[in-house]
Amino acid sequence: MNVGVVGLGLMGGSLARALKASADPPRILGADSAESRLADALEAGAVDVAEPDAARVVATADVVVYATPLDTTLDLLARHRSLWRPDALVMDLVSLKLPVLNVVTALNAGSQWIGAHPMAGGERSGFVASRADLFQGATVWLSATDEPHPMAGRASSLWTSLGATCRWIDAAVHDRRMLVASHLPQVAANALAALVAEAGLSRSDLGPGGRDMTRLAGSSPSLWRGLLEASGPELAPLVRELASRLDTLSRDLETGDLEALESLMGRTRRWKEDGQWS
Amino acid sequence: MNVGVVGLGLMGGSLARALKASADPPRILGADSAESRLADALEAGAVDVAEPDAARVVATADVVVYATPLDTTLDLLARHRSLWRPDALVMDLVSLKLPVLNVVTALNAGSQWIGAHPMAGGERSGFVASRADLFQGATVWLSATDEPHPMAGRASSLWTSLGATCRWIDAAVHDRRMLVASHLPQVAANALAALVAEAGLSRSDLGPGGRDMTRLAGSSPSLWRGLLEASGPELAPLVRELASRLDTLSRDLETGDLEALESLMGRTRRWKEDGQWS
Repeated sequence: MNVGVVGLGLMGGSLARALKASADPPRILGADSAESRLADALEAGAVDVAEPDAARVVATADVVVYATPLDTTLDLLARHRSLWRPDALVMDLVSLKLPVLNVVTALNAGSQWIGAHPMAGGERSGFVASRADLFQGATVWLSATDEPHPMAGRASSLWTSLGATCRWIDAAVHDRRMLVASHLPQVAANALAALVAEAGLSRSDLGPGGRDMTRLAGSSPSLWRGLLEASGPELAPLVRELASRLDTLSRDLETGDLEALESLMGRTRRWKEDGQWS
Repeated sequence: MNVGVVGLGLMGGSLARALKASADPPRILGADSAESRLADALEAGAVDVAEPDAARVVATADVVVYATPLDTTLDLLARHRSLWRPDALVMDLVSLKLPVLNVVTALNAGSQWIGAHPMAGGERSGFVASRADLFQGATVWLSATDEPHPMAGRASSLWTSLGATCRWIDAAVHDRRMLVASHLPQVAANALAALVAEAGLSRSDLGPGGRDMTRLAGSSPSLWRGLLEASGPELAPLVRELASRLDTLSRDLETGDLEALESLMGRTRRWKEDGQWS
């Protein structure tokens, strides 16, 4: 089996490494516009073929995986639509599924496409940050235009063979979840990190809690730009609500009225411990 | 040497375990008001003596360490002032140093006291969460009323023997740093976690980034209540500033004007990578 991996950054590089480390490793055709990543991936044994031209890779692959930012992915899907083998499974790893699904629908490519969003990764990017065990224990969200999808089994088994757990989800529902689970924490981390930085502190001046709260400040702006453009109007009310709650807490702190904050801390502690929210 | 550890929670328990695991383990006299912690600490070999009455422990120790919440520490310092051996070194582990220093000054106990704040810990609490390597590689802030302090060497070597690095700091300067490094991230984590919880998500629904950003939501409300009462008026403007920045970002997201946010992400990324802020 040939798996074409387009984009050999953190996600694509880790996918290639993980597939090569699996029980029955496929042949990996890797594509990336950066020469250095191709060379690194070849040297690491993560790919069998390294191609600067993605079009050549996707034409011969049994499974094509786009591990590229949102905008690039939408662009490549349209440009490659006519190149895929008719029996090829086409996946993408974008962390928003509805924009991809909409393009796939417009391209009438739903019968070949299953979108994936592995809940794994990190703030570092590039092939240098990739690792074979990235998907071990991770949830991978799967979405398609039509369910049941004829290639559902192939898609699931690819991810489960890497130690991930697949969960099918409606693309719109998925994206609403990600606003809270991923986009809101990202923006909060950036805003918080700026205040820490302005106070003259570096990350080594922080304890474990402060370091956790600023790790996402290292996320890739170029990756997030497209995601935030796509999610902006829906994300905005959530960011505003977080701002509003912090503003209320600041007044409580000022006046020393800490009942609400202590209650909030007790409730979030229970939620963290057992998932219960009251 | 006898080391009295008052409070066998995460910090005190870890201190006792770490001292017992060190090259030249002292005798540890542990005190806690909870029978279960005393029993657990004895069983783990973290203490040689387990006392429900802290007064009995502090009267015989060469080094007394209060590993108790802020309010309890201030109360015990006043009640135990007359019990310490005249040559005993007295330390506390409270994460704000000025409130402790003020009480020590009022008690005229500065010649015996060196305050410590280990930048280590976690959101879990209790002896069950303690571990011998908690202070390995951690920074421990040290403050005293007078510097150089006659017992500075004893205080430093206790912590460096556990793998920590000591840094002396003015108590007021320390506390201002902690507002940004620790208190602001804590409040942000609680506010963010509430929104995640209200969206019906549990922590297992989050990716690595979301989980990092909500870990502090598990912090102990009873530990933080006193800290936030002490820091509230100074912390409030910082929380308000974070709220204001998030509110501005929410407007940018709404209108799709992402220049400022992308620039912010680029700057916080550089800061995370090399500590530079521009």
